[in-house]
Amino acid sequence: MKALIKTLAVGLFCAAFCVQAQAADPIVLRDMGSFHPGGRIVELSGQPVRDIVRVPGGPTSKLDPNGRYMVEQMYAQYFLVQNRKGKLPILMWHGGGLTGATYETTPDGREGWRDMFLRKGWDVYITDAVERGRSGFPSPDIWPSSPVFLTQTDPWERFRIGPGPGSFDADPAKRKLLPGNQFPIEAFDNFTKQIVPRWLTTDDAVLTAYIALIDQVCPCVIIAHSQGGFFGFRAAEARPDKVKALIAVEPASAGPTDHAADVKNVPIVTIFGDYIDQDPRWVAYSKNVFAYLDAVRAAGGKPDVIELPKIGIKGNSHMMMMDRNNREIAEVIAKWLADKDFSEP
Amino acid sequence: MKALIKTLAVGLFCAAFCVQAQAADPIVLRDMGSFHPGGRIVELSGQPVRDIVRVPGGPTSKLDPNGRYMVEQMYAQYFLVQNRKGKLPILMWHGGGLTGATYETTPDGREGWRDMFLRKGWDVYITDAVERGRSGFPSPDIWPSSPVFLTQTDPWERFRIGPGPGSFDADPAKRKLLPGNQFPIEAFDNFTKQIVPRWLTTDDAVLTAYIALIDQVCPCVIIAHSQGGFFGFRAAEARPDKVKALIAVEPASAGPTDHAADVKNVPIVTIFGDYIDQDPRWVAYSKNVFAYLDAVRAAGGKPDVIELPKIGIKGNSHMMMMDRNNREIAEVIAKWLADKDFSEP
Repeated sequence: MKALIKTLAVGLFCAAFCVQAQAADPIVLRDMGSFHPGGRIVELSGQPVRDIVRVPGGPTSKLDPNGRYMVEQMYAQYFLVQNRKGKLPILMWHGGGLTGATYETTPDGREGWRDMFLRKGWDVYITDAVERGRSGFPSPDIWPSSPVFLTQTDPWERFRIGPGPGSFDADPAKRKLLPGNQFPIEAFDNFTKQIVPRWLTTDDAVLTAYIALIDQVCPCVIIAHSQGGFFGFRAAEARPDKVKALIAVEPASAGPTDHAADVKNVPIVTIFGDYIDQDPRWVAYSKNVFAYLDAVRAAGGKPDVIELPKIGIKGNSHMMMMDRNNREIAEVIAKWLADKDFSEP
Repeated sequence: MKALIKTLAVGLFCAAFCVQAQAADPIVLRDMGSFHPGGRIVELSGQPVRDIVRVPGGPTSKLDPNGRYMVEQMYAQYFLVQNRKGKLPILMWHGGGLTGATYETTPDGREGWRDMFLRKGWDVYITDAVERGRSGFPSPDIWPSSPVFLTQTDPWERFRIGPGPGSFDADPAKRKLLPGNQFPIEAFDNFTKQIVPRWLTTDDAVLTAYIALIDQVCPCVIIAHSQGGFFGFRAAEARPDKVKALIAVEPASAGPTDHAADVKNVPIVTIFGDYIDQDPRWVAYSKNVFAYLDAVRAAGGKPDVIELPKIGIKGNSHMMMMDRNNREIAEVIAKWLADKDFSEP
């Protein structure tokens, strides 16, 4: 009884203080840096030379658009911990219209998954997919299609923060919320500062660069979110020997099933948040993902699925890595990885 | 004599091993993260609604471009050291067509200025200017002008790696080099992976976001490179009370002189590399900068100028933070900051 009370007391103390204490510990890195896997040279010719002024007050200079361009490279930033407990590095892949900033500080200023996993002893690689963020994008002469730009309405209604169409309003006080939602809505406008343009025609280039990254730094574990989940499944099919585990966080698609058998030996867990049934788009997305996982099972694989509400974790939006309970979900992932023997105790 | 031999021996040992030993020490951070200063809401209306497929195999969905957009925010990533010796944080601002990656790992895989200054005990903030990298850019409905895309020829010939027009060749073996150049030319193609598109019409938006950053995190010291130098001088004019020192690394322009008097009390050092006289564009750029500095002096200021060849440091290109001797130049900057009493011994 005394022992039980003591355990309970430590538990209560920890619920109040341990998270904060953990966040105050220094992050000790044996190295960090960045590099650009992938990329290819494209040569343009026959374009007119233009006169431009590069900086205000500077001289006029010629801009000759003809020549060699480096295109379709991908930016990767890495953080390698001093006291490593994860047996493999974790690669964190963001979703559509976003960048690696997804995994950093949350829009309301809390710690993100990058630092949570670093503090747990995992090496972390964060990328900006081809075309996004620090990866840049080529000229319309090389990519003829135009990018798509997201309104603030789009993520509010599509990321299961509000209850679908009509739930966003310019006035924050009038925005409708899915009941019990965990997204830090007071920082929603700040979240929309993370949005970058996306193309709808660049999947092959994105996947090629992700595979170049895998060939450079894996064996590894991949956490892939939303559109990134599509690339995660494709990359695991292409490199089942190097992608040692795939954590698909609300993959918007798992893609076609014709190569699903290739990942039958890859430990896979797919995680979904709350309110899926209440959004026809998410019903369609998850149906596609479940069909893929069924094909993996038919080939002898044993992919896991964690539907957070079914394990008592309620209210999660599509952006669960920045939801108020993001640490709780990081713990679910860390436990899954530990159960699969990917980390030291 | 014995003491001299001992000093000499330590010196020889250190020349061979101390740099590597330093790089092998862990980087200990009390915190790191990211945020987005600046940004404003723009509302679009009257545009047609389009049907798009967001992910392969996914359902068709409507894209309504009308609505509210967050635009002109800036991405800032920070690294705060555990054992602080710099009295103020250093903000590192990149040049045109580049991102904050400028200050990270060099294209040939050596340590960049970010980590060198962290190891010296400075807190570091690195930004992607508005429109670049993780800051994103708005649709043509909001910014009507088109971005400029740089060929590989452009930086080779304009950043004083090769001797101007005609010095670049598709074949690395045929590229002409300024004699003694310090740029890691074997990694030049890799360097061009850092290039991102730039607009020529966005100076006001970029400066507004930089000033928002300053209001958020300064007093501070700013290291600003190339086009970033233009913004560094403008920001120092706007916030001379918060920009406690400006290190302008090859500013491509210092801009108009009409507010130069506003920075008369700000410690300023402008650093130029080698070969300036051999490139008419750099003669023009530096002339503009010297005229600005003369205006600061006329107002009673005492800006410093360091022309690296004059202090015996030869062969530096425009990208000196990634040149082979980048550590030597970081030491020059660190010494200037120490002389101005911005760091603990």
